[in-house]
Amino acid sequence: MSDKTKTAKTNLGNFFEDFRIGQELRHATPRTVSAGDAAVYMSLYGSRFALSSAATFAQSIGFPHAPLDELLGFHIVFGKTVPDVSLNAIANLGYAACHFGAPIYPGDTVHTVSTVIGLRENSNRQSGVVYVHSIGRNQHGAVVLEWNRWVMVRKRDANAAAPAGDAPKLPAAVSVDQLHVPRGLQLDAYDYVLAGSPHRFGDYRTGEKIDHVDGTTIEEAEHAMATRLYQNTAKVHFNQHSERQGRFGKRLVYGGHIISIARALSFNGLANAFRIAAINAGSHVAPCFAGDTIYAWSEVLDTQPIPARNDLGALRLRTIAAKDHPCADFPHKTDDGKSHAAVVLDLDYWVLMPR
Amino acid sequence: MSDKTKTAKTNLGNFFEDFRIGQELRHATPRTVSAGDAAVYMSLYGSRFALSSAATFAQSIGFPHAPLDELLGFHIVFGKTVPDVSLNAIANLGYAACHFGAPIYPGDTVHTVSTVIGLRENSNRQSGVVYVHSIGRNQHGAVVLEWNRWVMVRKRDANAAAPAGDAPKLPAAVSVDQLHVPRGLQLDAYDYVLAGSPHRFGDYRTGEKIDHVDGTTIEEAEHAMATRLYQNTAKVHFNQHSERQGRFGKRLVYGGHIISIARALSFNGLANAFRIAAINAGSHVAPCFAGDTIYAWSEVLDTQPIPARNDLGALRLRTIAAKDHPCADFPHKTDDGKSHAAVVLDLDYWVLMPR
Amino acid sequence: MSDKTKTAKTNLGNFFEDFRIGQELRHATPRTVSAGDAAVYMSLYGSRFALSSAATFAQSIGFPHAPLDELLGFHIVFGKTVPDVSLNAIANLGYAACHFGAPIYPGDTVHTVSTVIGLRENSNRQSGVVYVHSIGRNQHGAVVLEWNRWVMVRKRDANAAAPAGDAPKLPAAVSVDQLHVPRGLQLDAYDYVLAGSPHRFGDYRTGEKIDHVDGTTIEEAEHAMATRLYQNTAKVHFNQHSERQGRFGKRLVYGGHIISIARALSFNGLANAFRIAAINAGSHVAPCFAGDTIYAWSEVLDTQPIPARNDLGALRLRTIAAKDHPCADFPHKTDDGKSHAAVVLDLDYWVLMPR
Repeated sequence: MSDKTKTAKTNLGNFFEDFRIGQELRHATPRTVSAGDAAVYMSLYGSRFALSSAATFAQSIGFPHAPLDELLGFHIVFGKTVPDVSLNAIANLGYAACHFGAPIYPGDTVHTVSTVIGLRENSNRQSGVVYVHSIGRNQHGAVVLEWNRWVMVRKRDANAAAPAGDAPKLPAAVSVDQLHVPRGLQLDAYDYVLAGSPHRFGDYRTGEKIDHVDGTTIEEAEHAMATRLYQNTAKVHFNQHSERQGRFGKRLVYGGHIISIARALSFNGLANAFRIAAINAGSHVAPCFAGDTIYAWSEVLDTQPIPARNDLGALRLRTIAAKDHPCADFPHKTDDGKSHAAVVLDLDYWVLMPR
Repeated sequence: MSDKTKTAKTNLGNFFEDFRIGQELRHATPRTVSAGDAAVYMSLYGSRFALSSAATFAQSIGFPHAPLDELLGFHIVFGKTVPDVSLNAIANLGYAACHFGAPIYPGDTVHTVSTVIGLRENSNRQSGVVYVHSIGRNQHGAVVLEWNRWVMVRKRDANAAAPAGDAPKLPAAVSVDQLHVPRGLQLDAYDYVLAGSPHRFGDYRTGEKIDHVDGTTIEEAEHAMATRLYQNTAKVHFNQHSERQGRFGKRLVYGGHIISIARALSFNGLANAFRIAAINAGSHVAPCFAGDTIYAWSEVLDTQPIPARNDLGALRLRTIAAKDHPCADFPHKTDDGKSHAAVVLDLDYWVLMPR
Repeated sequence: MSDKTKTAKTNLGNFFEDFRIGQELRHATPRTVSAGDAAVYMSLYGSRFALSSAATFAQSIGFPHAPLDELLGFHIVFGKTVPDVSLNAIANLGYAACHFGAPIYPGDTVHTVSTVIGLRENSNRQSGVVYVHSIGRNQHGAVVLEWNRWVMVRKRDANAAAPAGDAPKLPAAVSVDQLHVPRGLQLDAYDYVLAGSPHRFGDYRTGEKIDHVDGTTIEEAEHAMATRLYQNTAKVHFNQHSERQGRFGKRLVYGGHIISIARALSFNGLANAFRIAAINAGSHVAPCFAGDTIYAWSEVLDTQPIPARNDLGALRLRTIAAKDHPCADFPHKTDDGKSHAAVVLDLDYWVLMPR
């Protein structure tokens, strides 16, 4: 067997020089989601937001059933892009304009298509930044998620010509009038007691900071199970034998796992933030590992009524997750503008809340 | 930001002086259960009781479908009370008169309401005992579970006046005529081979002791996943960073996890105890931690025919769980009446069994 | 209580001298499988084969819904036999002629019956080899799985007379005309992009070797959760307290867990091997433990068209799993015919693939 035969059937992923502007990537392995996925997700994060927890609550505000947690949907739809986009990534650099569209229900089948919208070789010619716009749809073709993402991807051959392209213009934030409001939503019968908090839209002020108090420690089995549930194949999360010789000497926790932990912790203080509507920007400030304990706090960046609705508002939040550091002191940046040493996640997003 | 602003949105739980006799607590986050919860539960305990394992078996004895394991239902319905009742608990002191009512089926939505039935300040004035009577209902309003529980809860302020109240009278045991028999139950076609044992009601004698033989070791990821599945938010189970400085230096395993392990182990010797009907009393004798191996044994405390049925009996059992100690010697009390050093759980309950 | 009373209700399993040729064992605890089991399985292995992942994909090739992963079905159906056949096993010696029949769908209830087909006492008279032929059926009586297996089982009493019997003749392999093709299968609309690879039946050649590249590290919680999901009660997988004093000083990973990891890894190189049709032979060459990282590679042993179909072929594969050893060098046997030190699994099986 030649070396060529050995790898001819194996997908080694795309390298920087394999991408082209306008290239469309139909990602493999569509996925039917179920109440089983919701249960495994519950066992991993223990989220208590009522909308995804109870069919009765969901129906009381106009949903046909309890939808999946928005982030469970995000991780699954996002995970499909890994084998084509980021198998040879050096770093996940950012997200922009992530819109949550039609809710995902148990029984739905989702799949994802990405388009390359930007390419920019790094000056060292070893790698380049790939920008993709990705759309997740359900079996009816409705958009369930749409986002932009950029990753630094290795070149197979440093001498290869760089593909043509440039960095695209991406919006710094989603504006409130672009937020998707789930069809049929009506909040007259919204039960604040069952939802877990009396605090509604009008009770939050821009600049307000909320310590979510609790902390949760990550186990290897937990983050690996989460990441496999999402069919995310990024090697660094699973292989201790190879990571032992890697940069950190151990397996890296999937950044999305931290987002889900932070969202679940944020229930304590934001129980009526019943749905994430958009992610404006997100940054995995520092890596996480098994054994880390994640705490979180949030700052209200903006409060906006939803146009043409008197029952619904949106809070723009910054949620910060920190490791091994309770968040009563709201860690974020140090005086020199650098991230606080404990911070691992800085997420800027919109949530819907009853007025 | 003032310290007050910081915590204004966060639920810090009730302290002893916040409770009042007769106070009703409608607990947050109703929960729709599913076959997904049953599968996660299976992966955590591996229970083999046929009723919850197989729809065909359940239907052969008059159930419409396979109900959830009774203890899965118990943990979920019970977990709802934690944020309102025991977030500031020092100790879970006991249970009494826990009745299992209508079976819980995949698709049901359960929620829980508690009433404060007793209050008694401790002499040190730092804390007091809160007694609650809790009822879990499904979406049709049928009672699925009902129980009394008492916990020692911290005072926010030792100088605060204690709320009026006293310890309530609680029954030492549920009497056999109070046991709920699932509607439609008929045991003519009960298949002892598929159920896993030939031993039926008449084969058990009061005083008989059964060693359940096997042992199962607890992992951090397992008990944390279990506890989150139940949306139980008690901090001591999840946060290694804070528990490192706590009483034990490590995370504490949710006591209900031990009950479920013991019940699953008890299949070997009690395979036809197809349903738990009531818990008379339960005591978490000693704390458990990841790494502990749980063994169990049972004593038959009583055998009673079910009134007006010639196909059904009830065994009153004491199941003892011990850690790192096989139970062939039936550890329970030492000669001076204290608990055997290995014992972690002492559970007194009724099970239904075909005659 | 006498020692006899102590164990009278407990199933201690069958010993070698308890078996008889022709004996039929109807195994306990039928099991209704669900989308929940599929989700837990996904979280444990992250398999990306499209048929079990997406209802839409399954329907596009003639299945009514997405069936469960074949190996999830295998482990559940197989696990039923443990309490009656191998509770006192010293070693699992082999499998032969394992046929995958009707697909298993969420909602199906499976149960298993075994027949003793061979018995051969070992010369040391301490143990003997038991051969069973087992059949798993769904609630309609359709065969979902059928296999032969032999295990070395302890004698209760070395002096007991050995039961009559001999080793049966078992086929070395399943022939291609015996492979079960799922009813209604039609591959005209098979989508190679969604399936994850352009490589179809005609692209594989006998002798070809494929390195599946990735590795996955096993955690204690993961293999124990898997094994409990299958209701497999073999003690060595769960009890650290007793295994500490055992042969390895630690818990042993269920061999089937390795098979599932290897199959999931094999997606990278065999994405269109959409269904396992038969296992010819399998050998757990060496034990695995938590902390081991599993890699895998496959060799194409044979390529055969499926009789009377021009759209379907079968590959006979040898998949080798190795621990802590990447498989780019295709580890298998050393020059003296012994297994390579890293090899833990040697599996010979047939997969179906579109032509």
